[in-house]
Amino acid sequence: MAREKQDIKQVIIIRKDLKMGTGKIAAQACHASLMSYMEAEKKYKDIVESWLSEGGTKVVVKVNTIEEFDDMKKKLRASGLPFKVVKDAGQTQVLPGTETAIGIGPYYTSDIDKVTSKLSLL
Amino acid sequence: MAREKQDIKQVIIIRKDLKMGTGKIAAQACHASLMSYMEAEKKYKDIVESWLSEGGTKVVVKVNTIEEFDDMKKKLRASGLPFKVVKDAGQTQVLPGTETAIGIGPYYTSDIDKVTSKLSLL
Repeated sequence: MAREKQDIKQVIIIRKDLKMGTGKIAAQACHASLMSYMEAEKKYKDIVESWLSEGGTKVVVKVNTIEEFDDMKKKLRASGLPFKVVKDAGQTQVLPGTETAIGIGPYYTSDIDKVTSKLSLL
Repeated sequence: MAREKQDIKQVIIIRKDLKMGTGKIAAQACHASLMSYMEAEKKYKDIVESWLSEGGTKVVVKVNTIEEFDDMKKKLRASGLPFKVVKDAGQTQVLPGTETAIGIGPYYTSDIDKVTSKLSLL
């Protein structure tokens, strides 16, 4: 089924409860962005191309607790959206294997918003 | 000429003088990371593949002034390294067209360090 042209974005969710510094947060966001980009590209090449040609909008939001983070993962698995969870090597600031961030999409904004619209901007 | 296996990384340079918030910085870092990844992949597919298979190390550093930022751009152009400068659409926090960040590589750590080794971590 053809879809009408509509907004496409990538959303990055950062765990605030880990108290990571700004540089660490930025690096985790980059991991999430690139991993999710590669995941989306496998399945939705046309959507990813449209997103890139329109500037590649990225929105960075936060969760404040591990419970919120786990709840997001559960909802994302159920949603069918392309996403990736970042597991940090833990060389600095967090323990090895700590999940620090999630990248979602690029995918249609209206579909991502169904899952993430209640999260605040970082 | 074959090169021995060696460390590969991506470096993201953020302009601190713009006083961007953490979420804005993270988004600019993601733009830089993805743009530079795509640039490097065009020319150095093997290097990029090695980097991904080893965890995709990303290091986020800072410059404190526009002069330092412009100096980096000049040195990067002369270096031949794969890199991309992020120009923000300027919808929030900065004026449209403001250059906010630079992504370098993934490329050999030893070559990137020749240009960026004096910069501090963000």
